[in-house]
Amino acid sequence: MELDVEQVILTLVIIFALAKAASYVFARFGMPGLIGEIIIGIVIVNLTIGDFNLESWLGLSPVTEGGVESESPTHMILEMFSELGVIFLLFTVGLETKVKDLTAVGRTAFLVALLGVLVPFFVGYAYVTMVDSNIYHAMFMGAAMVATSVGITARVIKDLNLMDARESRIIIGAAVIDDILGMIVLAIVSGMAETGSLDLGNIVSIALVSVVFVVAIILVAAKLVPAFYKSVEERNEAKLRENPDYIRPRPNMFILSVIACLAFAYLAEIIGLAAIIGAFLAGMLFAEHAWEWKLEERFEAVTTLFVSFFFVYVGMNVDLQAFVDKPALIGTAVLVIIMACLTKFIGCGLGAKVSEPHMPGSSLSIIGVGMMPRGEVGIIIALIGLGITVNGASAVSADMYNIIVLMCIATTLIAPPILSKLFRKKYHTEYVVTPEDRL
Amino acid sequence: MELDVEQVILTLVIIFALAKAASYVFARFGMPGLIGEIIIGIVIVNLTIGDFNLESWLGLSPVTEGGVESESPTHMILEMFSELGVIFLLFTVGLETKVKDLTAVGRTAFLVALLGVLVPFFVGYAYVTMVDSNIYHAMFMGAAMVATSVGITARVIKDLNLMDARESRIIIGAAVIDDILGMIVLAIVSGMAETGSLDLGNIVSIALVSVVFVVAIILVAAKLVPAFYKSVEERNEAKLRENPDYIRPRPNMFILSVIACLAFAYLAEIIGLAAIIGAFLAGMLFAEHAWEWKLEERFEAVTTLFVSFFFVYVGMNVDLQAFVDKPALIGTAVLVIIMACLTKFIGCGLGAKVSEPHMPGSSLSIIGVGMMPRGEVGIIIALIGLGITVNGASAVSADMYNIIVLMCIATTLIAPPILSKLFRKKYHTEYVVTPEDRL
Repeated sequence: MELDVEQVILTLVIIFALAKAASYVFARFGMPGLIGEIIIGIVIVNLTIGDFNLESWLGLSPVTEGGVESESPTHMILEMFSELGVIFLLFTVGLETKVKDLTAVGRTAFLVALLGVLVPFFVGYAYVTMVDSNIYHAMFMGAAMVATSVGITARVIKDLNLMDARESRIIIGAAVIDDILGMIVLAIVSGMAETGSLDLGNIVSIALVSVVFVVAIILVAAKLVPAFYKSVEERNEAKLRENPDYIRPRPNMFILSVIACLAFAYLAEIIGLAAIIGAFLAGMLFAEHAWEWKLEERFEAVTTLFVSFFFVYVGMNVDLQAFVDKPALIGTAVLVIIMACLTKFIGCGLGAKVSEPHMPGSSLSIIGVGMMPRGEVGIIIALIGLGITVNGASAVSADMYNIIVLMCIATTLIAPPILSKLFRKKYHTEYVVTPEDRL
Repeated sequence: MELDVEQVILTLVIIFALAKAASYVFARFGMPGLIGEIIIGIVIVNLTIGDFNLESWLGLSPVTEGGVESESPTHMILEMFSELGVIFLLFTVGLETKVKDLTAVGRTAFLVALLGVLVPFFVGYAYVTMVDSNIYHAMFMGAAMVATSVGITARVIKDLNLMDARESRIIIGAAVIDDILGMIVLAIVSGMAETGSLDLGNIVSIALVSVVFVVAIILVAAKLVPAFYKSVEERNEAKLRENPDYIRPRPNMFILSVIACLAFAYLAEIIGLAAIIGAFLAGMLFAEHAWEWKLEERFEAVTTLFVSFFFVYVGMNVDLQAFVDKPALIGTAVLVIIMACLTKFIGCGLGAKVSEPHMPGSSLSIIGVGMMPRGEVGIIIALIGLGITVNGASAVSADMYNIIVLMCIATTLIAPPILSKLFRKKYHTEYVVTPEDRL
């Protein structure tokens, strides 16, 4: 199997153009552009007219060689672009988040995350135990309900230019903590499904490593980057005093920040967190000087290039055929979707209310809705369950998998328009159709 | 075969960091940074210490599945990044090239390209016919000598900030024409090797299509993009007169230019030209307004991200083992390298001298050296020859292939330091260690 460079360029440019055009149309009608991009993804995998299948024409269908089916090279490139898209998106969010912004909302963010994990987990668990006797099915449904994909909400916040709003800080902070808690839940659930028992030592060590990782980056490294830069500046000024013609060699902070972004994304993956959490934390390292180093505009360009592939890829996970084949699933799916929305909304709103009893309802709603989208995180959890066999049955059944995927996409589609409406009402901003959105 | 996202992120960040560090070190010692990047590529594929092989550790070695050997997914991603790197590099060169800049040097560029094709071809052809009785070997050696990879020279010119120099314009213009002529040569040579006869109709049609493609873009589309933009502006101003609060929707020219860049790169590939020629022409479409639309700084960021992968990938084609196994090849390789340098230098210098008899020697030298690097284009031609069998023998033998690859890399390594020295001498500029080069 070899890479067909021509085919990949064609596929990339077609998807990029379709996604941006759809984003433009949606933004024009006051809807978040990312929904248009997700719909393009749904269309790509589900559109078949006669013999013409868009997915296969774009070289994205699996290929078989030597009797082995594998992902097509073009699909691999798209998958990688999608991954880099959300990594760079969260890095730019990090760039606009200073450490003190996050610590200022720390307590509230923690409670939002905690209740936003507990309520959906137990409701999901309870629902499945009522209709199904398989305890692992129940646990995985709970775990999938817990996930929060901050990429979706981050894009809405960035499009509205409301990174500085207090609710935005709480959501972003809570999403980071949610990811750690979600990882612990996943460790417990998949550990029990695989071994049939609870390995407490393992769970404690996972929890410790991830907390140390996050706290270490925030507290220690946030001081290292500015210190490094300051030492370079000081050395330059000393040389300038000796020789007034000295040309200052300035480290290229864009290159350093790309390295940090990818390296931390990798480290986060290695210890079991999502890559985007690493990228977000890496962005925070550079937040104090992002403006001075022109990092924001440079990463804006890079993100504009990559990010639409992420949203298209999210849409490409929707297999409409499964629901055409089994219409009965639709009823269950609708119920699960409603539960997924309500449990996050109530859990997170409650968390915020407990921490700040005087917080107005408008803010509570924004936080509740902002935490709703499950995005790709829930899908990944369902995939893990699909791969674990307990007592001769998959820990996630095929039907459950399709329902979870639809729930993840549905929450991802439902939350952004409501969130942007709530934000606009509260902050009296128009939905900012930024140049990034206009085509 | 599935994509291992973690492995790819690790490989990308390691290669990126090594390449930028090497570039920094070379720039610091007054050498073009790209040489450091190429050397990193050579090291990656040739470094084996005991059982440790860097190429395989980075997931870049071929993988075997179901008895079929194929390119590894990580290698595919790297290859694609490399391709996009040189595409975006040439697009940024196009952004700094206005149509009138190119037409002003048209005659000279044409003669430089023409003699820069004829002299290397016939010298390469003559040399091989002297030592080898296979006429196809001779023709392919000639064709490989003809190639010019403008990416290498473009990077030197950009690093020196000398895009406006007359010599730079001539080199860029000649490189475009060289690519068309080179394609015609390749069509003749490979057509004769495959069919044993000369298909004149085919050659004329290839020549016509490529000339029409280039001229059409330059003349017609160069007027279309500004016209489109003007119409948007006029519509906005009309609306603004009606309603002073109207927020101007401005088309996002960055997105449009990414689409144009990739679409033209694809079209160029389809008609048989190099993708980079399409990208360069697409860049020219936006040149008049590049500054106003902030395209230069945005593509600068994108290019900084991708371009090092291209130079590393060029280096990864060098198989030092072939020369360890057959030391006798080294002598032939050295001879071919000397011929490759001299024939381009003399051919192109002569072309410039014929067109402009009063051009100073310093300019002739710059043009001659600037056209030397064969880069990946020569390697691609050798690969094509390797795949054609005539009378039971390959049109390019395995030894010839190794020699051609080494010649391409050597010219790519030799030209940049000389070119930058000549440029600096003539224009009294220091080698500009731009922030892009410093780490």
